[in-house]
Amino acid sequence: MDDKNRDYIGIARGKEQENGALLRETIDRIKPTDADYRARAKHRQDHLVKPPGALGQLEEISIRLAGIYGQELYQTQPKAILAFAGDHGIHAEGISGQPQEVTRLAFANFPKGICSVGVLSRYTGNKVIAVDVGIASELPVDGVIDRKVNLGTKNLSKEPAMERAEALAAIAAGIETANEAIDGGYRVLGLGEMGICNTSPSSAIVACLSGKSAEEVTGIGAGSAPEMIQKKIELIEEALTRHQPDATDALDILSKVGGFEIGAMTGAILAAAARRIPVVLDGFISYAGALLAQLLAPISTEYLFASHCSAEPASILALELLGLSPALSMQMRLGEGSGATLFFHILECANEVYTNVASFEGAAVPETGLERKDHGL
Amino acid sequence: MDDKNRDYIGIARGKEQENGALLRETIDRIKPTDADYRARAKHRQDHLVKPPGALGQLEEISIRLAGIYGQELYQTQPKAILAFAGDHGIHAEGISGQPQEVTRLAFANFPKGICSVGVLSRYTGNKVIAVDVGIASELPVDGVIDRKVNLGTKNLSKEPAMERAEALAAIAAGIETANEAIDGGYRVLGLGEMGICNTSPSSAIVACLSGKSAEEVTGIGAGSAPEMIQKKIELIEEALTRHQPDATDALDILSKVGGFEIGAMTGAILAAAARRIPVVLDGFISYAGALLAQLLAPISTEYLFASHCSAEPASILALELLGLSPALSMQMRLGEGSGATLFFHILECANEVYTNVASFEGAAVPETGLERKDHGL
Repeated sequence: MDDKNRDYIGIARGKEQENGALLRETIDRIKPTDADYRARAKHRQDHLVKPPGALGQLEEISIRLAGIYGQELYQTQPKAILAFAGDHGIHAEGISGQPQEVTRLAFANFPKGICSVGVLSRYTGNKVIAVDVGIASELPVDGVIDRKVNLGTKNLSKEPAMERAEALAAIAAGIETANEAIDGGYRVLGLGEMGICNTSPSSAIVACLSGKSAEEVTGIGAGSAPEMIQKKIELIEEALTRHQPDATDALDILSKVGGFEIGAMTGAILAAAARRIPVVLDGFISYAGALLAQLLAPISTEYLFASHCSAEPASILALELLGLSPALSMQMRLGEGSGATLFFHILECANEVYTNVASFEGAAVPETGLERKDHGL
Repeated sequence: MDDKNRDYIGIARGKEQENGALLRETIDRIKPTDADYRARAKHRQDHLVKPPGALGQLEEISIRLAGIYGQELYQTQPKAILAFAGDHGIHAEGISGQPQEVTRLAFANFPKGICSVGVLSRYTGNKVIAVDVGIASELPVDGVIDRKVNLGTKNLSKEPAMERAEALAAIAAGIETANEAIDGGYRVLGLGEMGICNTSPSSAIVACLSGKSAEEVTGIGAGSAPEMIQKKIELIEEALTRHQPDATDALDILSKVGGFEIGAMTGAILAAAARRIPVVLDGFISYAGALLAQLLAPISTEYLFASHCSAEPASILALELLGLSPALSMQMRLGEGSGATLFFHILECANEVYTNVASFEGAAVPETGLERKDHGL
C-alpha cells in the first residue's frame, strides 16, 4: 500500500454499502442468551458446598456465561484483549496534557508487552490484539494490525468527527477484528483502547444517550489538568448543541461526536454477541462503545461483563444504562484494557468455583436447613 | 492428647500470663511502615509509561507494599490463607439456617481443597493453612492444625462468650499461626474463617466500636432467613446491654461478645504487622478481627489490604473505621478466605505493573506535558 496516496474517505465511502450490510447481518444474528442453560447453571451453583448465592457476582458470572455459551460446562480459554487505537481532532483545543503522538508511541508498546495491559496480559496469560483504526500518522507501527479508517477524527467541537461512511467503517473494523479472533479460537474477548483525548467523545456519547449535561458526564480522563476540565465541558456542550446528534441513531451519534476506536469497540461487541462470545468491558471509553452497541442491538448487553468502575465521574451512570455491575472499583483511569485484563482472572475464578467445588451430594455436609432461594438471576 | 480429659478453660487460665506476654511483645514490635520506601515506590510508579496515578489503587498497592516490606523491589510469593474455625454458643438461639456441625464438616473441606477457598487457592497457587481454634467437637479434622481454645463460645446473648484468659488464648493462637507461616517463608498472608453464626459476634464488635445500634450493623450473614434477622438484632442488643463491653478494651470486647476465630484473626494481624508482612482481609468477620487489632495497635492497619466489600450492610462502615478501600465489590458473603484469595491476584498484578512496565526513560514516549502530581500517598 502506498500510504501517501491512500484516500481514506474515498475508501470508506466506497465500502459504505458493504459495511452497512455487514453491520445489519451482524445485528440480525444477535439472539438472547439461553435462559435454560442459565437455570441449569444456577441449579448447579445452588448444590455446591456453600449457602446458595453466597459468592454473589462470582456465581452470577458463571450463570451468565452458561447462558451466553449455551452450555452447562464451557471452555473460557484462550482469551484476548482487542485493543483499538485512534486519534481525535479535538486534541487541537489543548484539553490534554499529552501530545497527540503519544497515541502512536504508546500503542507501539502494546505488541511489545511493555505497557500496563501488556504486562498484565503476559501475567494473566492472554493475548493482546492491537488494531490501528485511526492513528493520526502514516507511520506504520510494528505488530499492530492496520484497519485505519482515517488519520484521526475531525475536531468535533467545530465539525462532525467523521462522515457516516467512516462511522460504518469503524464499526466494520471492530466486527472484522472480533470475527477473526473468534475464528482463531478465542473464547472470551476483552476491550482495550488508546487514543489521546478519547474521554471527550465518550463523554459526549454518554451525555447524548443519558440526556445529562456535559458537566455531569465529564472528568479528567487519564490525567488532564483540572483547569482543562472546564474547557472540555464547554467543547462537548458546543459539539452537542452544534451537531444535535439524534439519540436514537447510533451512527449519527458516532459520526458527529464519536471516535474511530469507540466505533470499533461497538462493532467488536456486536460481532461477539452474534457469535455468542462474552465481552469484558474496560473503562469509560468502552462504556461509550457499549452504549452505542446497545442502541443498535439492545440484547447485546447480555454478552457484556463490566470489569471495573472507571474513575471517570459518569461511569456509574453509564454502567447503570447498560444494566451492568462492575466487579472492581479501584479508581483506575488508564484504559488500554488494563481493567478488562484484571477481570479475566475473576472470570476464570468464577468458572473454577463453578466447575470444581464439591456438591452437597459428593461431600459430607448436610443440606438440612440450607435455604434454596431464587436470587432472581 | 486425651481429648476427653482436656480442660480447655484450665489450659487457657494456666497460660494467661504467657499469652499476655506474647501479645504485649508482639504489639511492641509493630512499627509504622516505611515512608521513605513509599516515596521511592511512588517515584518509580510516576516514571512508568502511563499518566501518574492512572492505575489508581493498583499503584497504591505497590506503593504501600514498598512501605510495608521496607524495600523498593520486593518478593510477594509465596502466599497463604490463614483460615480459623470456631463455633458460637449463640447458635442455640436458632438464628442460622445451618446446623452447628456445618462448621466442622465444612472446615474439613479446607485442607481437601474442595470448598470455594480451596478451589480458588489451588487456581491462584497459594496455600491454605486451616486452624481449629474453637470447633464445638472433640472429633479431630484431617489436615487441620489443632489450636482449639474451647469447644465453641458460650451464648453471648446470655453470658460472656468466653473468659478473658480464653480471649488471650485465641489471640495467641493467631499470633503463633502467623509467626509459623512467616517463619515458613510466606510473604503475604490472607485471612479466612469458618464458623456458623460468626456474623453475630462480628456485628456486636462493630456496633461496640462504631457506637452504632445492632440494627445498623446486622445482616443476613452467609444466608440466614430474613425472619431470623430481627431476632439476631435483638440478641446482639441484649448482649451489648447485658455485658456493657468496654469500647477501649479489645480483650473485654472479644471476651464478652466475640469469637475464637475472630480473636485468632486479630492475633494474626498483629503478628504479621510486627514482622512487616502484609495481611489481606476477607469479609465481615475479618473486619471485626481487624478492628480489635486496630484498638490494640492502631498502626496495624498500615499492614492491611481490604480485598472485597462484603455484602453485610455494615461492611462500608467497618472498612471506613479501618481506613481501607476494598478493590472488589461483588456482593460476596461466604467468608472462608474466598475474597482474600481473589485479591492475591490483584496484589500480584500490582507488583507486575510496578516491576515490569517500561519507564519513560526506557521507552520512546515523550514525557513532555505529562503531569507529575502528588497523589497524596
